Amino acid sequence: MNSPVSNYRIVRFKEGTISEEQDLVVREEPLSLVLLHGPSDDRQETDWAVSMRTPGNDEEFALGYLLTEGLIQHPSEVLSMRYCVKKEEETGNRLLIQLQPEVVVEVAARRKDAFLNSSCGVCGKQAIDEVFLQLPAIRPLFSPIPASVLLKLESSIRAKQPVFRNTGGLHACSLFSPTGTLLLQREDVGRHNALDKLIGAALLQPEQINLSESPCILHLSGRAGFEMIQKAAMAGIPVITSIGAPSSLAVDLAIKAGITLIGFLRDNRFNVYAYSENINFNL
Amino acid sequence: MNSPVSNYRIVRFKEGTISEEQDLVVREEPLSLVLLHGPSDDRQETDWAVSMRTPGNDEEFALGYLLTEGLIQHPSEVLSMRYCVKKEEETGNRLLIQLQPEVVVEVAARRKDAFLNSSCGVCGKQAIDEVFLQLPAIRPLFSPIPASVLLKLESSIRAKQPVFRNTGGLHACSLFSPTGTLLLQREDVGRHNALDKLIGAALLQPEQINLSESPCILHLSGRAGFEMIQKAAMAGIPVITSIGAPSSLAVDLAIKAGITLIGFLRDNRFNVYAYSENINFNL
Repeated sequence: MNSPVSNYRIVRFKEGTISEEQDLVVREEPLSLVLLHGPSDDRQETDWAVSMRTPGNDEEFALGYLLTEGLIQHPSEVLSMRYCVKKEEETGNRLLIQLQPEVVVEVAARRKDAFLNSSCGVCGKQAIDEVFLQLPAIRPLFSPIPASVLLKLESSIRAKQPVFRNTGGLHACSLFSPTGTLLLQREDVGRHNALDKLIGAALLQPEQINLSESPCILHLSGRAGFEMIQKAAMAGIPVITSIGAPSSLAVDLAIKAGITLIGFLRDNRFNVYAYSENINFNL
Repeated sequence: MNSPVSNYRIVRFKEGTISEEQDLVVREEPLSLVLLHGPSDDRQETDWAVSMRTPGNDEEFALGYLLTEGLIQHPSEVLSMRYCVKKEEETGNRLLIQLQPEVVVEVAARRKDAFLNSSCGVCGKQAIDEVFLQLPAIRPLFSPIPASVLLKLESSIRAKQPVFRNTGGLHACSLFSPTGTLLLQREDVGRHNALDKLIGAALLQPEQINLSESPCILHLSGRAGFEMIQKAAMAGIPVITSIGAPSSLAVDLAIKAGITLIGFLRDNRFNVYAYSENINFNL
């Protein structure tokens, strides 16, 4: 159950031919950190944080997180850790952390996640369901996107990414028309910021770009994690391509939200993780 | 002031020779999003979130963020945006966002950052000062690290990163002795998670690895942003190497915290962004 990878059925496009294959995708699942703290006559249970992580080494993660975020100064301040096992299905995604009674926990400063209720039972499926409730309907594509359009996206970006070229330190997000015309591009040191900037820029010019009415292609310079798909889905974007790999939860959300998801788009090849029927593979 | 890059003085090691040079580093600065919301007879001001971002396109960022996080459904719900200009030095890092009176803001659900007070005046220097207050003393190195040790780190990792090899979707963090022996390695879909797992794993075996007493080298598979340096500094790690680029705030924090920082460690070369005197360049 704590395997870091899952098998997915994908359509691979390589050297002009397509094949249906099994592919390994890195798993992404929410882990809820719950602190049991306070003096022994007044113990409290506080949902502290939810992190999207790859399952495995969760106790190490919790200990490192508490120390590097300054909640504890020494590992001995953690008395014990165990998974919540109230319900069968939530085993392994909710970690109860018993702290020394002396450790002061500033409950008001805890991080809450915008998209997850911190109820018992957090899991990938629930995370997707909660996001899904908020999503606008994704408009179907007018017609399939030609593979030849996808293969040319990266070259039209390279010419227009000046800061990345200078520093090597930026993530870029780009918006294309279904025929491959570059509409907008934004860069940032944080990949989520770059996507928020891009979507915000589109919202500010509704005459030119209408995300909810006209299908667009979102192209990511890096990997496609859950939150990137979530943000694109909230903006109503129906097609996402990325140079890097998607995570398991990203694929699951794309399938649920009706988003066509393409990964490893580079060197004249790509993998389709969701809705390959929306790609026209005839070159 | 809103340039996405800054100039830094670095020491470049390439093809066996070193040179002191100016280098462009992508800027990272906190942006505080402040919501002005509620009915006109009871307006409220809420510090909603602090994001570490590259300056520029801040209004686009705010609009995209509010929509993709589900706070607004349409851009018309934002009436206006302006920077806080109470003090000279904080211009440009605190954005006041006036919402339609009808927009419901759930103040209890806001995201707070662990390392930043949401007081007016948030800026890179303040972020570093707040982190610095919490830091343990970084122990000086016993002796400079040979460049030859740094150049070999990556090859000893490649052999031991099985999940990345299978999926291409993971970040890895590795801990080395000053002589280049691989001590520990952890992977995760999130780079901060991988680092927290690594530090937690070290804390769980104090007999083998004593971060606060013995100097170690932390090697990052990707880029070195502010939060990665922050986490390493909290654990008392004195040397950080990364395959990718550092951000401006990462360099600034490394200098303040006494951490030797190396970037672009690949293809037999690297750049030293802080404390080049801790590297022995004689091959």
